[in-house]
Amino acid sequence: MTVSSPTFQTGADVRIAVRKGAFTGHTVGVAPSFVQGNVVILPKAHAYDFLLFCQRNPKPCPLLAVSDEGSPRLPILGMDLDIRTDIPRYCVWRDGELVGEPAQIQDLWRDDMVTFVLGCSFSFEQALISSGLSLRHVECGDNVSMFKTNIPTVSAGPFSGPLVVTMRPFMPADVIRAVQITSRFPSVHGAPVHVGDPAVIGIRDAGRPDYGDPVEVRPGEIPVFWACGVTPQAALAAARLPLVITHAPGYMLVTDLLNERLAVF
Amino acid sequence: MTVSSPTFQTGADVRIAVRKGAFTGHTVGVAPSFVQGNVVILPKAHAYDFLLFCQRNPKPCPLLAVSDEGSPRLPILGMDLDIRTDIPRYCVWRDGELVGEPAQIQDLWRDDMVTFVLGCSFSFEQALISSGLSLRHVECGDNVSMFKTNIPTVSAGPFSGPLVVTMRPFMPADVIRAVQITSRFPSVHGAPVHVGDPAVIGIRDAGRPDYGDPVEVRPGEIPVFWACGVTPQAALAAARLPLVITHAPGYMLVTDLLNERLAVF
Repeated sequence: MTVSSPTFQTGADVRIAVRKGAFTGHTVGVAPSFVQGNVVILPKAHAYDFLLFCQRNPKPCPLLAVSDEGSPRLPILGMDLDIRTDIPRYCVWRDGELVGEPAQIQDLWRDDMVTFVLGCSFSFEQALISSGLSLRHVECGDNVSMFKTNIPTVSAGPFSGPLVVTMRPFMPADVIRAVQITSRFPSVHGAPVHVGDPAVIGIRDAGRPDYGDPVEVRPGEIPVFWACGVTPQAALAAARLPLVITHAPGYMLVTDLLNERLAVF
Repeated sequence: MTVSSPTFQTGADVRIAVRKGAFTGHTVGVAPSFVQGNVVILPKAHAYDFLLFCQRNPKPCPLLAVSDEGSPRLPILGMDLDIRTDIPRYCVWRDGELVGEPAQIQDLWRDDMVTFVLGCSFSFEQALISSGLSLRHVECGDNVSMFKTNIPTVSAGPFSGPLVVTMRPFMPADVIRAVQITSRFPSVHGAPVHVGDPAVIGIRDAGRPDYGDPVEVRPGEIPVFWACGVTPQAALAAARLPLVITHAPGYMLVTDLLNERLAVF
């Protein structure tokens, strides 16, 4: 995946371009100082259980904001934000099956919809890069490697399933630095969940990810694993709800929050 | 308030003594290495809005755990924990009025009850003391000063109201240290919300707290303000729900979590 996006100064600039149909691309590297979010939209009937699932699994499901029922607004993330039009590509799921990838969802909107926005690893990757660390998958123009683990999430209502993690390899000194840097950002997955032997968390072959692209672990490097936003997506799919709308992978909601504002330290 | 409690080694020891009726005191300074929690128990009908209120106001409402509907268990906080018997004193609220302070609530329990446990400042106070900082109210044997501010919470359903804060005075060098130390603990109120002039956050007279005891700010000291767990209690009272059960102030749930395990760094 190469970054050839137009240059946007702010998250609002991105959203306005998306809303007008002037920008339809993925958001990797777009307005990189601003927080991008995973989005889940579902009917109020399932909102309590999903909110509880996020509360119980904050590392894979770091909630940034929850809308009021029926409201497409999320003023805490952007005063003008309209969740029905401001994401470049959506995924529409019916009974756990992907049935469409529209560029807006105004026709699907209902008065009982609740929107959840979750932090994503773009924020901490930006912090790692700013600190001089190299991310192999970014260097190679690939997607990050993602793996199902043998670590269960804490279930809530119909939502359960394994923790999904991302993997990034680092030399030992950078492992330490990566732990320090990502620990500052608990609202975008925070510190790693595992370091070292993939088998310890149930990963048989670190060269064969369950999602994303293979990423090489070179001699002397240690694989480092972070909780991943695919965890709630997998739990949602497995729950086979009648209707769920999400962002399409890589086509995120770009907010007005600065990544650095999320740092607890 | 002076500390004259029996010595308990663990949170489980405290809960067992409480459950047997062998310990009925307040929990200030009891098993100080272990996380103590504010407790809110309410019917499922109001659980979504309260969970949302906590999500939207994480500094005053740092959620540690939410039970399953009807279950008195919270295994994440203690395998044996029974929320109906393990708190030394409860408050029972009907229509926003305090109607009783029983030592157990087995007779009030219903199959639609949901329990919320929120972090409390005892955890970060322990960290401040361990780092050599003096807490004036602890030295004086007083309760901490608490103030309503002009900072609104983000409302959710029937829950709204002003942010309530605690105040602790420090000399400038210790202000810096206190910010550093409490920033490590976002799940127990985290970093301060304000430093310095109380009027900036709507406090007219720092010598006249809305709750707790007056605490002197001596020459050269700076008052430091943290979000306080009274915020959700005040929001609950104002919502005048038919039934809410909480812990009694100072009579907290003592868990099996170590305070230090809550540190993000």
